Amino acid sequence: MFLPELSLIEAAHQRIAPYLHRTPVLTSQSIDAVSGAEIFFKCENFQKIGAFKARGATNAILQLPEGTKAVATHSSGNHAQAVAYAAKSKGMQAYIVMPETAPKVKVKAVKGYGAEVIFCAPNQQAREDTLNKVVAKTGAAFVHPYDNKEVICGQASAAKELIEDTSTLDFVLAPVGGGGLLAGTALATHYLSKNTKVIAGEPEGADDAYRSLKAGEIIPSVNPNTIADGLLTSLGKLNFPIIQKLVQEIITVDDEAIKAAMRLIWERMKIIIEPSCAVPLAVVLQHQEKFAGKKIGIILTGGNVDLEKLPF
Amino acid sequence: MFLPELSLIEAAHQRIAPYLHRTPVLTSQSIDAVSGAEIFFKCENFQKIGAFKARGATNAILQLPEGTKAVATHSSGNHAQAVAYAAKSKGMQAYIVMPETAPKVKVKAVKGYGAEVIFCAPNQQAREDTLNKVVAKTGAAFVHPYDNKEVICGQASAAKELIEDTSTLDFVLAPVGGGGLLAGTALATHYLSKNTKVIAGEPEGADDAYRSLKAGEIIPSVNPNTIADGLLTSLGKLNFPIIQKLVQEIITVDDEAIKAAMRLIWERMKIIIEPSCAVPLAVVLQHQEKFAGKKIGIILTGGNVDLEKLPF
Repeated sequence: MFLPELSLIEAAHQRIAPYLHRTPVLTSQSIDAVSGAEIFFKCENFQKIGAFKARGATNAILQLPEGTKAVATHSSGNHAQAVAYAAKSKGMQAYIVMPETAPKVKVKAVKGYGAEVIFCAPNQQAREDTLNKVVAKTGAAFVHPYDNKEVICGQASAAKELIEDTSTLDFVLAPVGGGGLLAGTALATHYLSKNTKVIAGEPEGADDAYRSLKAGEIIPSVNPNTIADGLLTSLGKLNFPIIQKLVQEIITVDDEAIKAAMRLIWERMKIIIEPSCAVPLAVVLQHQEKFAGKKIGIILTGGNVDLEKLPF
Repeated sequence: MFLPELSLIEAAHQRIAPYLHRTPVLTSQSIDAVSGAEIFFKCENFQKIGAFKARGATNAILQLPEGTKAVATHSSGNHAQAVAYAAKSKGMQAYIVMPETAPKVKVKAVKGYGAEVIFCAPNQQAREDTLNKVVAKTGAAFVHPYDNKEVICGQASAAKELIEDTSTLDFVLAPVGGGGLLAGTALATHYLSKNTKVIAGEPEGADDAYRSLKAGEIIPSVNPNTIADGLLTSLGKLNFPIIQKLVQEIITVDDEAIKAAMRLIWERMKIIIEPSCAVPLAVVLQHQEKFAGKKIGIILTGGNVDLEKLPF
């Protein structure tokens, strides 16, 4: 089992800091009043490339062997931009496999960093097959979106900063897709804030992590269907045991609850977040008895929405 | 001519501070790259009630005679919320005359502060007639949205903070509707940053301030038509001479340029701003030769958009 020491997380944080923002932690009296809790939002929507994924990808790419000329990955969007951004800052070529259904704004941004985009069908198998072909053809180093040690350690830096910038939290909540952010969040919280419980939010229409935790083994995501387009992937092999060991609970919410939480953040905080990162607030709003009066850290994962396809 | 001393602006700032946020000044490398300038955005979209108008209304209401029980105003939206908010925090009843066309989110917010809303036709005459009836009936104190000394001194505090939180700016840009913010901005800049030029942005479809400055007298706004729904009103009598004396130039932009600037801020900065406050950035983007390499402060006036009626 991969269970990195705190020193690995600290080293990752130090390594990536020059390339990234230390994002602000924001609060909203109005959302506190609605939720009955005291919420601290770690605003990774203000991160480079508009999402926390810049952390993991940058940490992974900075540790590739000297002389690596190209990197490749598959991603529905934010990891794609993250790899493209990190590759560009190291002067490498990036090849990005994206589903045809990826939001336009994300495709445009990836190309804006000078990466080459290769489209595929919107399912896990097509992504992996296409990626394998690209790697075989170009010799690029594959940077997995979440099932990767350096990526997990990089993502952990978001929760590390959140904990450093707040007083003791009762809960830290993050969404779960492949489990890179969740594993990193659980690790940082375990080492730096022992009494804080980590809970994940997951869309009902993509609840493979919830079912995996119940079953005690990874149950792949099959035909997921949710507005939270960043959370469609299955749990990673490295990620699952960390989540099993350090995450207290996974709570699911439906798309209506996700949309309502997203809208609440847009209207009350005047910040743009994507549907995937409204999931934890939706969890808090649907379980007020559990969270009433508690201090809660929520990682707002990203803000890359397609403005032509808003759910309002 | 009303030309308040610096001490009046300083007193207003001190008076309102306990009720309001000192909003952040944000920058965007990506928008700097697009514009060729170095821009400092004063984020009044994060202000109480989601707009700078909270400053002026709070300053005016805090100076009403002891024993005042009710206040009234007319406003297309943000001043309405501002008066409702300030009245509530002083335990007063607020009566707000709003055009039938006001964004739903603004009407809802005004009612949320416990104010009574009275609707009228969407023109200046109907607003004033309805307001007069309300004042006659209730005895409420009228707080004008912009043609009011305390309001002007309150709005000046936004530029005061912007200047305090940045190093010397070449330009400060603000939008102009009734001229409360612009007069306040010009006053604060005049006293606190002598070499900084103040320029206003105005929608082509509501260019009464541009024409008034050319003509040397107030030319009322007749049938204005622009997406910038906060800038429909005519210049105030107190505001005009201050603007004449201290504002270097008014530059107009069309609605397409306003929409493009709004979208750029949403996509690159991940913050929600309303169309009216995209006007100054639209000015900068359309006059790159004038602003290239300059340090520019822009007051982002508010973030209260109707999410069901977005221009994207």
